[in-house]
Amino acid sequence: MERIKPRTLSGFPELLPARQVQFDRMVSTLRETYSLYGFTPLDTPLIEASEVLLAKGGGETEKQIYRFAKGDSDLSLRFDLTVPLAKYVALNYSQLAFPFRRYQIGKVFRGERAQRGRFREFYQADIDIIGDGTLDILNEAEIPSIIYKAFSALGLERFQIRINNRRILNGLFRLLGLREKAGDVMRAVDKLEKLGPGEIRSLLTGGLAVAPEAADKLLTVLQAKDALSALASFQGQDKLLDQGMEELSTVLGHMAAFGVPASHFSVDLTIARGLDYYTGTVYETTMLDHPEIGSICSGGRYDNLASYYTDKILPGVGISIGLTRLFYVLEEQGYLSETLSTAPADVLILPMTADLTAAISLATALREVGVRTQLHCESRKFKQKLSYANKLAIPFAMFLGEDEAASGTVTVKDLASGDQIAVSPSDAVTRVKDALSARAGGKPIREKRRD
Amino acid sequence: MERIKPRTLSGFPELLPARQVQFDRMVSTLRETYSLYGFTPLDTPLIEASEVLLAKGGGETEKQIYRFAKGDSDLSLRFDLTVPLAKYVALNYSQLAFPFRRYQIGKVFRGERAQRGRFREFYQADIDIIGDGTLDILNEAEIPSIIYKAFSALGLERFQIRINNRRILNGLFRLLGLREKAGDVMRAVDKLEKLGPGEIRSLLTGGLAVAPEAADKLLTVLQAKDALSALASFQGQDKLLDQGMEELSTVLGHMAAFGVPASHFSVDLTIARGLDYYTGTVYETTMLDHPEIGSICSGGRYDNLASYYTDKILPGVGISIGLTRLFYVLEEQGYLSETLSTAPADVLILPMTADLTAAISLATALREVGVRTQLHCESRKFKQKLSYANKLAIPFAMFLGEDEAASGTVTVKDLASGDQIAVSPSDAVTRVKDALSARAGGKPIREKRRD
Repeated sequence: MERIKPRTLSGFPELLPARQVQFDRMVSTLRETYSLYGFTPLDTPLIEASEVLLAKGGGETEKQIYRFAKGDSDLSLRFDLTVPLAKYVALNYSQLAFPFRRYQIGKVFRGERAQRGRFREFYQADIDIIGDGTLDILNEAEIPSIIYKAFSALGLERFQIRINNRRILNGLFRLLGLREKAGDVMRAVDKLEKLGPGEIRSLLTGGLAVAPEAADKLLTVLQAKDALSALASFQGQDKLLDQGMEELSTVLGHMAAFGVPASHFSVDLTIARGLDYYTGTVYETTMLDHPEIGSICSGGRYDNLASYYTDKILPGVGISIGLTRLFYVLEEQGYLSETLSTAPADVLILPMTADLTAAISLATALREVGVRTQLHCESRKFKQKLSYANKLAIPFAMFLGEDEAASGTVTVKDLASGDQIAVSPSDAVTRVKDALSARAGGKPIREKRRD
Repeated sequence: MERIKPRTLSGFPELLPARQVQFDRMVSTLRETYSLYGFTPLDTPLIEASEVLLAKGGGETEKQIYRFAKGDSDLSLRFDLTVPLAKYVALNYSQLAFPFRRYQIGKVFRGERAQRGRFREFYQADIDIIGDGTLDILNEAEIPSIIYKAFSALGLERFQIRINNRRILNGLFRLLGLREKAGDVMRAVDKLEKLGPGEIRSLLTGGLAVAPEAADKLLTVLQAKDALSALASFQGQDKLLDQGMEELSTVLGHMAAFGVPASHFSVDLTIARGLDYYTGTVYETTMLDHPEIGSICSGGRYDNLASYYTDKILPGVGISIGLTRLFYVLEEQGYLSETLSTAPADVLILPMTADLTAAISLATALREVGVRTQLHCESRKFKQKLSYANKLAIPFAMFLGEDEAASGTVTVKDLASGDQIAVSPSDAVTRVKDALSARAGGKPIREKRRD
């Protein structure tokens, strides 16, 4: 028989079982967190009509998209979860209740050049709140609390949510006479943290021909420790700037009631995010000990979700976590908890008699109370079966040999401690169930100890 | 602005929010059930190299597959979860522990002609147990208990697992001199329930030129109420038949210990499943009140999972549920429970004062104890906000108006009963949490009452 070499394509992640359990735990934690905030789950198709998916058009997107024909159909794989949401809301507008809060955790596809840490098929975890005509600023204030809750539930501790308002930037640019070059200035300013103020000043006053005075004013505000105070001198001169400052104050003013500690958010006037898309509050989230990773959760407020599908005005606010990338970064940096159980079962039953009835009944009783149980009946040596349990990190083994059959007992072995005890089957079930509930929980991420 | 009409492709299911919650509940129920039996979750890429995915080849598959080029790569979307499993096990053989038990619930793609109840993008929910070289018959006996547990957990009651062993059929055909036409005979026999014995006899003795005596013997056995007794007269004449009967007896003998009631399984010698693939026990599952739907969960034992990728012998047993199709059938037949909560939140908070601090703090406190909470701060009339809660079937509303602010209370309204009460915020949290845990649970499927 001719054999084909089995392989998985580069850029298409595929995890070994224990890692998959950790990844799934991250997904379920995010689902739970998003649910706490009243978001409903959606699951749109991976394949859409190309004309629908590319309605907005755009250069990079079209180059990276997986597009193909099947019969007469021109099809594409989704490259984000926002366009499918826009389509969904426009299509089902009359059947939805607004504000419409949805989360979607699903795969998207981008045919980028594969390189370390870049994926062609990857998970995004998105939430969006869509208003019908209007959407209250409170929704923008709530988003940081969701980010805070999500990463805390995952086990991350040292992270910071950076908040800005696009109206502040746009107003400031207008005031400083930079409106025409807003895009270029924004891109320069975005590199402030990376390149430092000296280099950015040169960039602004050089190639971008910004007046030195304007550049200095801009850089002073952007670098201020207390952004709102630094902006005070500009107040009352530009409507957009004033509105942005008011919105930012409102958002910040609600942080305490939303339970976000002061240590976990800050104002960062350099954050712009997508140039055309966001119009109000914008967010980025960085790991304090790994700023080089960039933002692990970003988003913001936009004025109109689905203008290319409908004349309804649908303002919204949303954030996205690039889950596959985050997972690989966490793995690489040693942030995945090694204490989280990844075993596929809680108990491995090893029958050692010809009659399997007692062993099977024990398995049935354990499963009945929610204990994940596997029967190991293969013809292998006893030692091999124990090493199977150890390799999979299964915490308990139960033996049913001739002695146990004679006395109507089962031997329960704690594979970590090595302790074992012979008890009645019903006692065995209770013991293991109790021991497991005491050990339950654990978060997928574990902060490294810093000394 | 030029607008594109939003649409979702035919054959690509997309659910409204309440239905999506029901579907997700089915998925999570299956995940939990599979976990109870020691299966570990896998998530392989949706895109694979075409040469890998099509290693086995095969007519219908190639016609239906979504295959396309991206750069130099010849890519395909997976059309089932078995081929990716074979690839995964062959590729990661040295890092897996055997028997390897995995479940995968994921989308697959088949470019079939779209028609009612047929999908091009749909979920399959598979489990497989893969042995290294050998795999004990006990695994075949365990599968019906997983099917039973899964459908019971979903809420289905009137279903039956039909069990057969391919060795019995093959042995019987050999004994009756039908070995050369086994495939054709199998296909005829498969229609026995549908067409009745008279028509099948004509088919066999006519076009297939089976001797009348052989046809009668075959039909007598296949129609017997007690299949194993009917087969007794053939015992000792064919090794394969004897082995099949022994295996079937073993499987049936373990049903009680595995907790499968006699009402929920039966032997059905007409079940063959895939002609080339299955070699031992095979399973089908039918809804007693809807036999026309066909099997809702099928599978069986196979000798070698991945012969086109590796020279390792990897016998296995597995079953698959066509989850998307099942969901649509259940919906159509009125089997989806209307009592299962599909609300995106448990509580809707309606602040009615300018200062939102108390309302936000209440939301934070509710979420802290796991109550799914949404703040409704849009500028809408009170009545509209209540109708929003009703439309989404949110069970509780909490009002914070001037009176409540003055007295430091919150008004909790049970939207189903209309009862409302003003209590302290902490009492409100406790009350709702307790009421919710009393209501929790519920299965996604609800059997119709039969009178």
